[in-house]
Amino acid sequence: MLKSLSKIRASVLEFTEHPRFRNSIMVLLVINAITLGLETSRSLSADVHQLLIFIDMFILMLLVGEVCLRWFAHGMAYFRDPWNMFDFGVTAIALIPSAGPFAVLRAFRILRILRILTVMPRFRRVITAIAASIPGISSIVVVMMVIYYVFAVMATNLFHAQFPDLFGDIGRSMFTLFQVMTLESWASQIARPVMTEHPYAWLYFITFILCTTFVMLNLVIVVLINSMNEATSPRKRRAGDPEDFDPAKLRKRKF
Amino acid sequence: MLKSLSKIRASVLEFTEHPRFRNSIMVLLVINAITLGLETSRSLSADVHQLLIFIDMFILMLLVGEVCLRWFAHGMAYFRDPWNMFDFGVTAIALIPSAGPFAVLRAFRILRILRILTVMPRFRRVITAIAASIPGISSIVVVMMVIYYVFAVMATNLFHAQFPDLFGDIGRSMFTLFQVMTLESWASQIARPVMTEHPYAWLYFITFILCTTFVMLNLVIVVLINSMNEATSPRKRRAGDPEDFDPAKLRKRKF
Amino acid sequence: MLKSLSKIRASVLEFTEHPRFRNSIMVLLVINAITLGLETSRSLSADVHQLLIFIDMFILMLLVGEVCLRWFAHGMAYFRDPWNMFDFGVTAIALIPSAGPFAVLRAFRILRILRILTVMPRFRRVITAIAASIPGISSIVVVMMVIYYVFAVMATNLFHAQFPDLFGDIGRSMFTLFQVMTLESWASQIARPVMTEHPYAWLYFITFILCTTFVMLNLVIVVLINSMNEATSPRKRRAGDPEDFDPAKLRKRKF
Amino acid sequence: MLKSLSKIRASVLEFTEHPRFRNSIMVLLVINAITLGLETSRSLSADVHQLLIFIDMFILMLLVGEVCLRWFAHGMAYFRDPWNMFDFGVTAIALIPSAGPFAVLRAFRILRILRILTVMPRFRRVITAIAASIPGISSIVVVMMVIYYVFAVMATNLFHAQFPDLFGDIGRSMFTLFQVMTLESWASQIARPVMTEHPYAWLYFITFILCTTFVMLNLVIVVLINSMNEATSPRKRRAGDPEDFDPAKLRKRKF
Repeated sequence: MLKSLSKIRASVLEFTEHPRFRNSIMVLLVINAITLGLETSRSLSADVHQLLIFIDMFILMLLVGEVCLRWFAHGMAYFRDPWNMFDFGVTAIALIPSAGPFAVLRAFRILRILRILTVMPRFRRVITAIAASIPGISSIVVVMMVIYYVFAVMATNLFHAQFPDLFGDIGRSMFTLFQVMTLESWASQIARPVMTEHPYAWLYFITFILCTTFVMLNLVIVVLINSMNEATSPRKRRAGDPEDFDPAKLRKRKF
Repeated sequence: MLKSLSKIRASVLEFTEHPRFRNSIMVLLVINAITLGLETSRSLSADVHQLLIFIDMFILMLLVGEVCLRWFAHGMAYFRDPWNMFDFGVTAIALIPSAGPFAVLRAFRILRILRILTVMPRFRRVITAIAASIPGISSIVVVMMVIYYVFAVMATNLFHAQFPDLFGDIGRSMFTLFQVMTLESWASQIARPVMTEHPYAWLYFITFILCTTFVMLNLVIVVLINSMNEATSPRKRRAGDPEDFDPAKLRKRKF
Repeated sequence: MLKSLSKIRASVLEFTEHPRFRNSIMVLLVINAITLGLETSRSLSADVHQLLIFIDMFILMLLVGEVCLRWFAHGMAYFRDPWNMFDFGVTAIALIPSAGPFAVLRAFRILRILRILTVMPRFRRVITAIAASIPGISSIVVVMMVIYYVFAVMATNLFHAQFPDLFGDIGRSMFTLFQVMTLESWASQIARPVMTEHPYAWLYFITFILCTTFVMLNLVIVVLINSMNEATSPRKRRAGDPEDFDPAKLRKRKF
Repeated sequence: MLKSLSKIRASVLEFTEHPRFRNSIMVLLVINAITLGLETSRSLSADVHQLLIFIDMFILMLLVGEVCLRWFAHGMAYFRDPWNMFDFGVTAIALIPSAGPFAVLRAFRILRILRILTVMPRFRRVITAIAASIPGISSIVVVMMVIYYVFAVMATNLFHAQFPDLFGDIGRSMFTLFQVMTLESWASQIARPVMTEHPYAWLYFITFILCTTFVMLNLVIVVLINSMNEATSPRKRRAGDPEDFDPAKLRKRKF
């Protein structure tokens, strides 16, 4: 009995890993991307809108079926792969009942389309490469966030009374400082108005800009050097690379 | 008969490939650039304007002649070279009858001046080098565009009612998100107004900025690493390099 | 007598260098970061506010105790280490009597939280690496500042009469030029208004932008090349690295 | 007679090349930078202002003397060195009679302070290194300028009627396109207003931004790769490096 189940699982796995199966899912996702995009248009007749919703429902059912099939094939090992967890999550969004905050749910259904990036190996590789640069910069990101927090608390204490919209609480201060870091209207709409009340505020803003810019420069350099080392090192295999995936090995490990 | 045609073709080819011929075309293009620039001026007298249009027509005829000569010399192989297709296209624009949307056609004639970049080998090399970095980033560009599309559909669903100018349909949303990606007035004119209606919109905008910035950083790094590999690799020849062009070889291949 | 003092010092040093001691300080700093953040909130009841101030005072006492202990352990050598000077400085801020400009002092207490970055070796390494790139760029920074000063004096002389807010004195001119360098509203709010009075001002602004951008590009490249050399060179030890710290050596040198 | 002149020249040359002489000039320039900065202040009394002008005149005379001395020492070879030409030019500005456009001349006197960067070898090296990256990018700069010109003529033809301030003539169009390239208010104040009249103008602006950004990226990469090659190549000597300057050699070559 257990043996036959294992056999079914193996053949289902083989089926879901087949390139043709993958390509079909890809086509479904592209069609779904188009229908979800068309649904946002307000110039369509009610009939067309109804049709789009029907197509959307139909594709959703197929995608849910695919997730279930692959879940069945892999067993609970399915959730050990972060790609599968992502697939499961973005597909599950659409199944939440649309009572309550309806508009917000309609908006997040589109996240399902991000699966285009996880289905095809070449896009998966790009995302793996981008994600691979994150661990190397975690220390710099923490340094950045501590600097951020210190400057946000300082600005809230110094400027909250006169500028409640910009620096009224820590949340607003952090958003304003993010805006300053992106250099968007930092002088014309933030620093110059603040300087009319606090003439020495330029010290605060220029210190903040120089600090964050220099830390960001170092972050970029770390990402660059890590990428260059990886590009020149002989071992180029990455964990999440589907090219290296061998269903036979998985079966052996499981049963 | 066929032999004599082939001979004429060979000598025409030799003529059009001669550096002096190339330099003459270059001079014509530079003069044409100046006349087309002067034509935009509104302080010129009608006589001068008439003269400029005459010079423009005269140079256009010579350029059309050059395209025809090279087309004759190469035969249909002419259109296999993307540089020739570009030359043909930008020269042909001026021959479209100027009825219909007149002003728009007047505006696109200037594209002909871009041939300055395709006539001289040193500029051709620059463009070849820049174009050579495009295939390496195609996967990242697709990833970028999927992320873009997902965010645009989401913003249209969430914000279209209150902000029809910014997020009224997918087209507007994509333009607005491009503006956000370039960090132009993203907070002062987009995120802050949206946050007055949707207090949690900062999550959307900061996620979008962090995602696109990080993907762009990786895109830059990929272009950089590819350029460095190419610069250090022993084979530096590129396909479109006119220095490597050998008319004799072409003739052999053709006849 | 002197020997027993030296013994006590050695054991105090061992105690303060212990990872568990370091982690306790870290926990205190994180708690203090949270309480100082909460204190900025204006929706808390007076009781909670009182409690936060009490916790803040208590942690401050412990941090002052830690500084004193390490000062005692190291003797006057304590102040030779820039990390210790930083610790001493940011802790001492809180001890200045809060008469006089009260609000400003409240604001700078938060600098104490930057010690999170100096307590943990992995953050110390990040800051050491960032600081290590400063000596290599000192010449470029001086070049930049001379260019800056020359442009600021020139702008003050040329534009001060019509634009007192932007170029009224050297200080204002330098702030405005910093804004121009960050490309924030440089055309719409600075160059275009100035050009209505001085039609050739575009020459000034475009020269300034091209100069500073090109110098900044070279600065980034110098930092990058230095970082790459350091990353590939065999000796990766850095002076301020606490991993290399050996209390035994210090003791020998001192007594 | 000629021999004694040559001897005097040699000793003058030795004198002007002495580090102590160089340092004195440096001190004069720094003092002059301060006095020229103070002269911009409007809160000084007339007496102090008079004193500053006197100091300025005195230092100017010494600097003119230095230029004359070095001119005498080198003979007409003086003008072969671009550094000397720069020194001569910025010093000569102050000698132009201040009739005519007085304010403008007052403003350009400050350029003399840039000599701080040409007197000290370490700053000279920085400028030599920055200038060394210019020849490598000349082709890309020409490509950029052709693209620029084509887009400027096109915009003038398309948009001049409705937007005379932004695209009234080629000069205005080029300034506006420079602003767009720096991404300053490109959407909020340029593209969006234009799009109300020309709905397809987004195509023009996004094409322009993508083109120029990509060309600029390649320019940065070329500068970077050239700098890296120079940094790793064994021969690091540069032509304008004053460390390599040998007065003896110069004398032999001249007489």
